[in-house]
Amino acid sequence: MFTIRKASAEDAPAILALIKNLAIYEKEPDAVVCTVEDIVRDGFGPNPYFYCLLAEMEGRTVAFALYFFKWSTWKGSACLHLEDLFVEPEYRGLQIGFRLLKELARIALARDCDRFEWDVLDWNTLARDFYHGLGAYSKDGWLAYRLEGEALTRLAAP
Amino acid sequence: MFTIRKASAEDAPAILALIKNLAIYEKEPDAVVCTVEDIVRDGFGPNPYFYCLLAEMEGRTVAFALYFFKWSTWKGSACLHLEDLFVEPEYRGLQIGFRLLKELARIALARDCDRFEWDVLDWNTLARDFYHGLGAYSKDGWLAYRLEGEALTRLAAP
Repeated sequence: MFTIRKASAEDAPAILALIKNLAIYEKEPDAVVCTVEDIVRDGFGPNPYFYCLLAEMEGRTVAFALYFFKWSTWKGSACLHLEDLFVEPEYRGLQIGFRLLKELARIALARDCDRFEWDVLDWNTLARDFYHGLGAYSKDGWLAYRLEGEALTRLAAP
Repeated sequence: MFTIRKASAEDAPAILALIKNLAIYEKEPDAVVCTVEDIVRDGFGPNPYFYCLLAEMEGRTVAFALYFFKWSTWKGSACLHLEDLFVEPEYRGLQIGFRLLKELARIALARDCDRFEWDVLDWNTLARDFYHGLGAYSKDGWLAYRLEGEALTRLAAP
């Protein structure tokens, strides 16, 4: 049905289109000043600032997950931070978002991260319910979600 | 009086001692499970997860600033994230923290970041007043501080 793969520099226009559609969904359509050149320079050079997974279906790029790594001085380990996750509205209900999250959980474990975190807008109860179902929790009222331990391993499972 | 330099792998024990002293100051003395090996592996390999500045005085390592980079899909640019900043109590009042922040502001601009961010505990009013004085602001009640634009350039100035 759909396939998931790592993005490459040629995907920068498709990534930018998804970033803009996510901003529309987040009710901030004018917030995106990012360009294709910014994405190529910062995501696909020798020391990338971010990484990106894409989902493709029917010859279209229909979803993306953009992420990078943080580091915890208390834990002494890395944390995968999901910056953006977006599935085009007409491709929802197919578990594309879930499969992207599962792939990210695997990447997190493969890179010895013991945490996987992301931020959620407080009004997005649909997304929040979905994340709670994965075992993620919101840290002390911030709505910054974290998945770790058992729940992280469970999501990474085949 | 004091000197600031980038940390290397040999500094891992000194970095860990500062991480532990910061945890004591943050009232979480048992939270640190990080080891010297974690620091060497994740900070000083070919693709480090973090970077670190140290301040030295009287033959001692008396302060550290540990940071990494995030990326904004809306801005299309990197952001320097300060994870930890700590000056040993007996070396405060000498502008060591300020010089570390200034050096980080320079690194941020040199790496084409247009933001410099960090989180602050809400009860730490001393730190918050200091950050406000630099032109940093707290994003919508989260106490996650951000310095950008004019204020960032000003802090980076000689």
